[in-house]
This record gives sequence, C-alpha cells and structure tokens, in this order.
Amino acid sequence: MKIKAGVIGATGYAGAELCRLLSQHPEAELSAISSVSFEGKKLSDIYPSYYGLCDLVLGKAEDVIAKSDVVFAALPHGLSQETAKQCLDAGKVFIDLGADFRLERAEDYEQWYQNTFLYPELHEQAVYGLPELFRDEIRGKRLIANPGCYTTAVPLALVPALRAGLIEKDGILADCKSGVTGAGRKMTQDTHYPELNEAMHAYKVAGHRHTPEIEQTLRRVCGEEVKVVFTPHLLPVNRGILATCYAKAKPGVTLDKLRRVYEEAYENETFVHLLPPGREADIHNVRMSNFCEVSLHLDTRTGTFIAVSALDNMVKGAAGQAIQNMNLACGLSETEGLLMWPPAF
Amino acid sequence: MKIKAGVIGATGYAGAELCRLLSQHPEAELSAISSVSFEGKKLSDIYPSYYGLCDLVLGKAEDVIAKSDVVFAALPHGLSQETAKQCLDAGKVFIDLGADFRLERAEDYEQWYQNTFLYPELHEQAVYGLPELFRDEIRGKRLIANPGCYTTAVPLALVPALRAGLIEKDGILADCKSGVTGAGRKMTQDTHYPELNEAMHAYKVAGHRHTPEIEQTLRRVCGEEVKVVFTPHLLPVNRGILATCYAKAKPGVTLDKLRRVYEEAYENETFVHLLPPGREADIHNVRMSNFCEVSLHLDTRTGTFIAVSALDNMVKGAAGQAIQNMNLACGLSETEGLLMWPPAF
Amino acid sequence: MKIKAGVIGATGYAGAELCRLLSQHPEAELSAISSVSFEGKKLSDIYPSYYGLCDLVLGKAEDVIAKSDVVFAALPHGLSQETAKQCLDAGKVFIDLGADFRLERAEDYEQWYQNTFLYPELHEQAVYGLPELFRDEIRGKRLIANPGCYTTAVPLALVPALRAGLIEKDGILADCKSGVTGAGRKMTQDTHYPELNEAMHAYKVAGHRHTPEIEQTLRRVCGEEVKVVFTPHLLPVNRGILATCYAKAKPGVTLDKLRRVYEEAYENETFVHLLPPGREADIHNVRMSNFCEVSLHLDTRTGTFIAVSALDNMVKGAAGQAIQNMNLACGLSETEGLLMWPPAF
Amino acid sequence: MKIKAGVIGATGYAGAELCRLLSQHPEAELSAISSVSFEGKKLSDIYPSYYGLCDLVLGKAEDVIAKSDVVFAALPHGLSQETAKQCLDAGKVFIDLGADFRLERAEDYEQWYQNTFLYPELHEQAVYGLPELFRDEIRGKRLIANPGCYTTAVPLALVPALRAGLIEKDGILADCKSGVTGAGRKMTQDTHYPELNEAMHAYKVAGHRHTPEIEQTLRRVCGEEVKVVFTPHLLPVNRGILATCYAKAKPGVTLDKLRRVYEEAYENETFVHLLPPGREADIHNVRMSNFCEVSLHLDTRTGTFIAVSALDNMVKGAAGQAIQNMNLACGLSETEGLLMWPPAF
Repeated sequence: MKIKAGVIGATGYAGAELCRLLSQHPEAELSAISSVSFEGKKLSDIYPSYYGLCDLVLGKAEDVIAKSDVVFAALPHGLSQETAKQCLDAGKVFIDLGADFRLERAEDYEQWYQNTFLYPELHEQAVYGLPELFRDEIRGKRLIANPGCYTTAVPLALVPALRAGLIEKDGILADCKSGVTGAGRKMTQDTHYPELNEAMHAYKVAGHRHTPEIEQTLRRVCGEEVKVVFTPHLLPVNRGILATCYAKAKPGVTLDKLRRVYEEAYENETFVHLLPPGREADIHNVRMSNFCEVSLHLDTRTGTFIAVSALDNMVKGAAGQAIQNMNLACGLSETEGLLMWPPAF
Repeated sequence: MKIKAGVIGATGYAGAELCRLLSQHPEAELSAISSVSFEGKKLSDIYPSYYGLCDLVLGKAEDVIAKSDVVFAALPHGLSQETAKQCLDAGKVFIDLGADFRLERAEDYEQWYQNTFLYPELHEQAVYGLPELFRDEIRGKRLIANPGCYTTAVPLALVPALRAGLIEKDGILADCKSGVTGAGRKMTQDTHYPELNEAMHAYKVAGHRHTPEIEQTLRRVCGEEVKVVFTPHLLPVNRGILATCYAKAKPGVTLDKLRRVYEEAYENETFVHLLPPGREADIHNVRMSNFCEVSLHLDTRTGTFIAVSALDNMVKGAAGQAIQNMNLACGLSETEGLLMWPPAF
Repeated sequence: MKIKAGVIGATGYAGAELCRLLSQHPEAELSAISSVSFEGKKLSDIYPSYYGLCDLVLGKAEDVIAKSDVVFAALPHGLSQETAKQCLDAGKVFIDLGADFRLERAEDYEQWYQNTFLYPELHEQAVYGLPELFRDEIRGKRLIANPGCYTTAVPLALVPALRAGLIEKDGILADCKSGVTGAGRKMTQDTHYPELNEAMHAYKVAGHRHTPEIEQTLRRVCGEEVKVVFTPHLLPVNRGILATCYAKAKPGVTLDKLRRVYEEAYENETFVHLLPPGREADIHNVRMSNFCEVSLHLDTRTGTFIAVSALDNMVKGAAGQAIQNMNLACGLSETEGLLMWPPAF
Repeated sequence: MKIKAGVIGATGYAGAELCRLLSQHPEAELSAISSVSFEGKKLSDIYPSYYGLCDLVLGKAEDVIAKSDVVFAALPHGLSQETAKQCLDAGKVFIDLGADFRLERAEDYEQWYQNTFLYPELHEQAVYGLPELFRDEIRGKRLIANPGCYTTAVPLALVPALRAGLIEKDGILADCKSGVTGAGRKMTQDTHYPELNEAMHAYKVAGHRHTPEIEQTLRRVCGEEVKVVFTPHLLPVNRGILATCYAKAKPGVTLDKLRRVYEEAYENETFVHLLPPGREADIHNVRMSNFCEVSLHLDTRTGTFIAVSALDNMVKGAAGQAIQNMNLACGLSETEGLLMWPPAF
C-alpha cells in the first residue's frame, strides 16, 4: 500500500514542486493539499501546468494531517512549530521545508529569525535532513528539518575537504547564485520580468539567514566553530543554485589529494556527481533533477581551494530532498521516485 | 522482459531526448545508441546533463539494429530509407523521427525534399504516427513515420472542426512559434546566444517543408485537398511550439458548437488538454511533457475561428510521441512512461 | 533655446522611456515630471538605471503643465481628457500616449473603452500621430494622439499594399507578438519572472482594444470599412512588437509589384527599413531605436501576401514616436534626437 | 572638423559596438572599417541591426590606417603589435582593445599569452587606458592599451580601499559574472542558445588571462605585489560584468570609513556611480552605457569587505572606454559621446 503524503502550503513553489514529484513516486500518493490563500480552489487553478493532472482541492491543514501518513509543510518561516506538534501528536511523520527546526541553538533562531523555540522537546527530536551527511540520523525519524537550497549546496561543496582537515576553517567564503524560483511565487518589482531579465545583482549581502545554517553544518562536521562569508546573488534563470566556495588549502595539499577525499565521500552517493578534472559544475545540468554536481579546482598561485556545486533549488534544494528524507524516514529505498534524468536542454 | 529500444542518431536533440525518456520507461530499456560524428564517445561526453546516468558508448547503426527490438532513428532527412529497410529485414520495429516516410505521395517528397522513394513497398507499409488521429492504423505496425513538431501541433488544433465540417477548407492559416531546440544542436549564427536572446523573427516564410505534411493530414481527415498558409517563427525559449491557427467558421457556427466537437474528440485523449473558456494555450504549461494544450476562440466580428495549440516540440513533437507510437506498436499501454507532469516553473 | 518638455505619468514604462530619450534630445530638455503614486520621490528611486542621471523630483501634473512647452501624458486610458483640456487652455502642446484621443468615432471609444468624449471639440482638433502616414496633418498641431505599439506596427506593414489596391480588404489578419514591457510596470502573476520565462501564449484573443484603432487607420487609408482579425501574444523578451500580417493578394499581383509600392512608400522614410528579399524583420534589430523593419513575402501557393514588421514597442511604439510627433509639432527636424542605432546585441 | 576614427576588426562584438558608439559621437566620425573574414561586405551584412545606418564597406587594415586620425583595433590577442607600429609610424593615435599592450612586464605577457614583445619601445610608450585611475598619463598619448572588461570592473571596486590602506593585500578574491557577449561572436557549443539558456557555470577557474592584468593594476596602486583569486562565470544575459570582490578589512576599519574614501575617489568621476547604502550594484542598471555602479558592504562577523561593481562589458568594458580614451588622447571632453542613459528595461 502506498504511503499517503500530504502537503501543507501546496501553492508556494516548493509545495507545488512537491506535488509534482510525489505524483511520479511509485510508493507514495498525494493524499491531500492545503493552502490558506487559495482554500477551495484546485491546484491547477493556481498552476495551469497541472491542468487535468491533479483534481485535488486545496483544503485546511487539519485535513491534510488527518489524511496523510507523511506531512510536508512548505510554509513561511515561523508557522511550522504548531503544525509539527499536531503531526507528531497524531503519530505522523513531519517533514518541514521551512526553517523552524533547522537551527539547533535557540539563540541562533532568535538572532536570525526573531523567534523562539515553542516546544524545545520537538527541537530535540528534530533531525537535519541532509542525507549525504546525516543519513543514519534520519532513518526512521518522525520530525525532519529539510535544509534550504544554499544550505545544501555549500556543505556538499566543502564538507569532504573540511572533514579531512585539508582546508583551513578560517576564511571560508561562499559566493552563491540562485535562480528566481528561490524568491518564491510572491510578486515583487525585483522579479517582474522586464526588471530581472538581463539583470544580475547580489542581495542580503552579509546578512542572509542561511548563514548560521551553513555554519552549523560545517561546525558539526569539523567539531569547531566555523564562520562563513556568504553572498547570495539573483540570477535570471528559473531554477538552480551555483555555489562557488573558496577556502585556504592547508600547506602541501594538492588537488589530487583533495580529489581523493571527495571521491571517497561521494562514490556511493547516487545524487552527487563529482565531475572529472576539466569540467565545471553547471546549473543547466541538474535542472528538474535531484542531482548535485561538484567540481574541484585549486588556485596554486594563492593556495586557494575552489569547490563549485550546482543543484536545482526546487528539487535537491527543496522538494526532492524532502522526498529523499521521506524515503529514509519510511524505510523505502532512498532514491525512490527521484532518479529522473535532468533534461539536456 | 523489457523491450530493447535503440536510438540511431542519439546525439541530436531528438535522439538525446529519446534516451532521457526511455530511461524512465517502465517497460523499455535503452539497449544501444549510435552516432556518426561521435562514435566511441559516451552520450554524457556530449550532454553533460547525463553525466553518471548513462554509460552507453555511441556505436554504429548496425549495432543498434542488432541489439534492439525497436529502433528509433533521429537522422537528418534523407538518411532513413536504407536504415528502415535493414530494420524491417531484420524483423525490428522501426520508428523514424525524420521526414522520409511522412509524405504518402512520392511527388510531394520529391518537390519538398528533392529526394525519391527508394523502396515504394516500404512507404506502403509505413503509417503516420499521430496517435490521436490515426491510432488504429498504428497498433502493431512495424514502420512508423513520427510526425514533426509543427505537424503535430497544427492538426491537433484544427482537425475536430475540420472533420465536423464547421470551418471552411479555404483560407486556413497557421502562424507558428517554435522554441530554439527545433533548430537542432548544430550551431548557427542565428542561434548564437547573444543574437537570439531578445529576438524574434519569422523564417522560411511560405516555404517550410512541414507545409505539405500538415496539408496531407488535413486532407486525410476531410477527404479533400486543403491548402494551408504556414509561417514558422523562432522564439527565444528552449522548448515549445505554439500554433495559432485561423479558419473561416461556416455560417451559423458558434463557439459552443465548436467546443462540443472538440470535447467529443478529446474527452478520451490523455495527452490533449482542451482548455476551458477564458484560458489560452501556453507553451510554458507543457514543457518536458507529452501533453498538448488546445484553446478555442471565435472572432465573431469577422467569423474567424482561432484555435491555439501548445506542445513541447521535443516531447509530444518528437521523442515523446515516438514512444507513444512504440507503445502502440508493441501492444503496451499507450501512455506508458509518458505521464510525467510538466513542471509549474 | 531648448523646448521644455514635461512628462505626466513619468513612472510608467512609457513615461520612463520618454525621460531617457528626451535626455539625449539636442533641442529639448526634460523640464518637469509627475506621478500620482510616487509624488515626492526622484525618478531614480523608481528606476535605479537612472541613478545619478536625473535629479528631478516627481511632482504634480499641474506643475508639469506650468513648466513645459510640450506636455506628454503617459496615463492609464481615460485620464487624459481633462489634462488635454488644461494643456490646450494654457497654450501648450499636448501629446497623449494613452488611447483617449486615438479613436475618431465616439461610438468606437464607448464600445471599446466604456468611456465618452468629454470635450468633442478637443477630439476634432486631435490628430493621429503616425507620421509616416499622416505627417502633414501633424505639423504644427497642439493635440496629438500618439498611436499604440500594435497600431503602429500593423499599418506600417500593410498600408502601402492596401493603399495601392494590391490586396483585398476582406480577410486581413494580424498575428502579433509583444515584448513584456507592453504589459507595463505593474506586477501580475503572468509577468512574474518564473512564470513568463520559457513561456508564450496569446491573450485577449478577438477582443484587444487596439483592434478598432488598427481598423480606423486602414479605413482612412483605403476609404472603406476594413475588419481585421488581430491576435496579440506575450513574448519573453523585454522589448519589441513583431506583427505578422496576412492579406489576400489581388489576382495577378506579384511580389515584385508589391515591393515596388513599398519602395516608393518608404524610400524617404528615415525610420522604416524595408528589408531586401531573403531577410525577415526581427525585433532584435530595432531594440532601443525608433526604426521599424518591414519584410515582404508572398505565398504563391495560396495567393497570400505576408508582411512582417518589427519595432521597439517602447520607442517607435510609444516614446520615440511621441518625440517624433513633438518634432513635427514644434517645427524641428523630424528625426532630431531619434537617430541612435539599435545595438547589435 | 571631426576626428576621423577607424576600426580594424570591426566585425567582432567590440568592433561592432565601437562603430555604433562612434556613430553618435558629436566630435568624431567613423572613417573606415576593416575585417579579414568579411572584406568586401558591408557591416550591416554581418549585423542586421545596422541595416540602412552604415554603408561602409569592410576593407583592409591599411586603408583604415590611411583614412583615420585615430585607429581602434579590436583584434584577437597577438595581432596588434604590427598594427600599432604601422599606426605610430604613420602618426596616428592607436587604441588597442586587445591584450598586447596591457601587461608592462614582458615575462607576464610570455607566461599568460605565450607571446613576446616585438617592439619593446612601443611598450614603453603604451599607457594603460583606465581613465579613472590613470587619467593624467593618458592625456595626449598615442598608444593606449584599453583594459579588458573584468580588468576594469575589479579595480574600480577595490582600488580606493586598497590605495587608502584599509584592506589587506593578501587574500583578495574576485568572483565575477559575465554576460555572453564577452565570449565574442564566434559560435561555440557552450554559447549555443539552448545550452546556455537556463545555465550558469564558472570557466577557466584559476587560470584566466585577466588575472595578471588585474594584479598589475592593484600593484601599481599600492606599490607592492598583489595576488588575486579570480573566478569568472558565464551568465545567460547579453551584456554585463558583475564583480563581487572580497578583501580582509584591516582592524578597526568601518563601513563608514570605507565609504568615505570611495566618495572622495569617485565624487568627480562621471562614469562611476557609488551607490547609497542599502542598494546593490546590478548589471541591469548599466546596460548600453559607459557607467559603472559600485556598492559597498562589510561583513562585520568576519571582517570581510565586499565591494560589488557592475558595468557593461561592451561599453565601459570595451568600446565605450576606448572612446573615453580617444577623448582624452585627443583633447576632447572626456565624456563626449558617452553620456547616454542606460535604459530602465
């Protein structure tokens, strides 16, 4: 029998993508969907691409919880804690695509989100759903915090080198570029077509909320505090994160040595493609897929290690990874429903 | 046991898309691929999106035929006749994505392609693979001419009205807009990014080779010669055909009456989405999918019927429809492997 | 002394473009600008491209009138009649980029805009500012209705043939494609970047308000009622109108004959580029310029004349043409300030 | 009398842009153009945007030299030395858009370009044409090496801080993003529309030839060797360089202090727009113009100074700056012909 998977907040971009991916999952079915803004409408009233494919009517969050084994929430930050409580009390698996359970320190959450942990015991149960790094913790869990897009891309680029002690902890820098869907479905002047077309700029320089989340993952991996300079940019493409990450290589570290630790780290990872020398990670190559490309470079003139990762912010950076977490939580094969090839063009 | 499906000419855009779609077909497997230009390379050497996903090496056409039950050929026009002969002699199913078997009249082929029918008996066996119109002829056949992209979009927009006698045969006009992948992988100055970006123009006005193919389909449907004005345009998007088709409505014909014949024609067609009043077909809504949207409009001031269809030129207009034909030819469910939703963004 | 030119409604796209073009006009200077929504702000607060280039503060319409010799109004339809009255009463030249003075018949205005002529005497004074067709009427006038973008592109494509009696009046059809700026600065879900990118669709099929305006121009040229099927489409580029226009060629009319009347019509027109045989009009080639490309084609199989025009909807289709009209109204050289080349990429 | 300006290599992108900008220069006229590949053709045969605007026929380099007071060369690297010799011998001003005269050390040129200084005395005469930094050296000179696009953007972002000693010389990093025109008119698979659309990737990581040129400028400014990590990326827009530059702020340096040195440095620079706090430099805002936007940021958590610059790679990064140099060399006002506003959309 298929897993009943429901989506709270189905009309945002991450929610809509979840519905699409769940529709092609062989072991799950989309059981119910909800939306505060569009209650009573069909999903295809909001997303005409889904016309004729999904007759579900957008209902209330409670109905989604009642009708589902696994509940995904794709809500604005701050709204997931109560929902999580309800889901766990009702014995459901809860996978949160928002930020409420991502930070393990209440003070970080307060500082960056101006919000508090309502149910500290829930935060203790929560696991951080980046399977390539924390797979064993995720299996069988009931409360999973799905990472953000940048916060998946940057660690996948840097962790093997950091864990192996081949780069310095100081001076790590992530210059990241995001497709527009990362800004969501809500209209802004900045994402009005004529003003974003033929444009590119940085945003939230030195202040983006994904910073503490990236630092937390790196800290967990190397056991020490790590500070990261993180600069996101908005890119006139629909999908994709490109993370160009810089770190000081330790003395004597060669590109070969670096490659070897990445090869070991990723040789059994279905969703991470470590590219051969001479190729660069490109967001074009991972669109609509759960794959992440990583390419490695060393600037020998300055001793700087440059690792570039590319993923689809809506799939590996959101809905696809959430399904990967569902698979792990529910004892399915981790790759179930997620092996579609990225289109070549 | 899965059907062994091989692709001759796998490195062109249609061939590459076929490989991708076959990889997610539950009843088929990609058995062998070939390319004249890239023999000996892996498909992912040409298409980096496929890195790590397809280890097949590009070989010779003969090997593809030997290793496959169904052979798809995505070759430049003119090269399929010999291949078809070899496939049929070897007892294979042959599905041609080129134009060599699309035209039933040798004189049309000579006029528009400056080429002759080498094996007239093959042309007699060939069926035209537009399932929504000629499904019964396709089932169980061994030689299928897969239609082109424009030649799928225009008939799906016009046939129900024409067949029902609600529009005039004279004065039919199709103003079509195509995504760039329709121009293929071969570089041209015209498709060099800076020169196509922020551009749009018509091409091959009054002389595109899809004209006789469109006319043939309309003629078969209404039993009389039909002439069509067909103007293709190149559009700065990767995928999609938008066909805005115009015809004189017969006196007294209302939009309601037109809608009813389309509803009847398409109510059981999985891949055709007849849109409700007030919505317009959009290539955005069918990308990466085998669906075709159709919207109907009547300009009552002039008595002009306007039917707009949208499809993905690489899927319903090429590789997806070829698989739909394979499914029919091999006795599988027609929709097998083709029900993926188009992404919402 | 330079002409003082003011812009009412300077923060819409047409108004903003006017400010830019006026800034490089050797005989005019931008004297004052207004905006209801952004009063008190600087234009560069709204359009960061203009940062450091324009220190004018957005004021009230009255101030613009007081400080200007020529007043341009780029207002939503319906709001120009009172402004026109004030301008004429104050002895100013008034050039309206809205639709209020474009239609000469009150009944057309009522039918298509649900509005009435408030000052019929003003409408009698108003001239329709399409200089290539009505130049002599425009010279020295004080109230000029600047045509819309489609309504410039379609007549420039068709008028020479129609005036020379080489095409039939019945069955004229204009399939038009517009860049997104035509939809204005106001955000809509439809023009949110991720939803328009990789998209194309028709809109307002058989009901766009430019229809009666196009018909009026054609009627004035040939002296008889003309009905036109007009289908606009939205295109994922910032600027440009491509008008693919179809008409029945009269018996015996050849492409040579058609070319000759176009050559005569446009040989002295600086802003119309009649393309040589074998080339197609392309919006890429006219961006940021006041030029209009026209290419001519004849489908001899069906006797259909196909004329394609391309222009920049914000320049020749709005602000540039408005300046061309100012030049004529004020006795300047018609091309003053408008001869910048379109960029090649 | 106008300056006669000729362009050798007029059919590459930089050359074509030069022709366009020279056409609107009030004190110069385009005297002659040349091309090896397209000799005998008109420029508008190559660039249809220029149809009807430029009747010059592409001739030989010698003719350009003979007919011009100022000769611009937009040639592939390595071909300018002989041309420079001919120009200087003939008493012309020579402005080189290629790299042959940019590097002052023969060993750098040999290492990065595998080429030698043919006429060392010419290299001694050559000045580096970045007017905002080296204006006084450029005035009245006859041999000017016009900087590349990245090599203009990065110094404009970093020099004021470096010169004032507010940042460390070690650990400077420039993560740059370039529009496609930077890759030139030559077709490549990488810049074929369907493969670059919806794409982004780094290229020539740790090995791009602009590295030593950037380092040379920084060295000249601070008097010591400087090493820079420079990572270029290819962006799916036509025009623009966005340079996100990182440097360690010296202890105690505040953003206010940094702002002040930039304000001083740029307060009289027409072409550099230092943005107010809260705004980010965007390539959208400088397209088709000679302006460069600079925004300043400080990541106080890590003590990292982030300066972002944006310019049009074809104007301030190539043809516009070359004209700025011509103006200086010929004693014209430096901004002549270069004050056009960037379009708002």
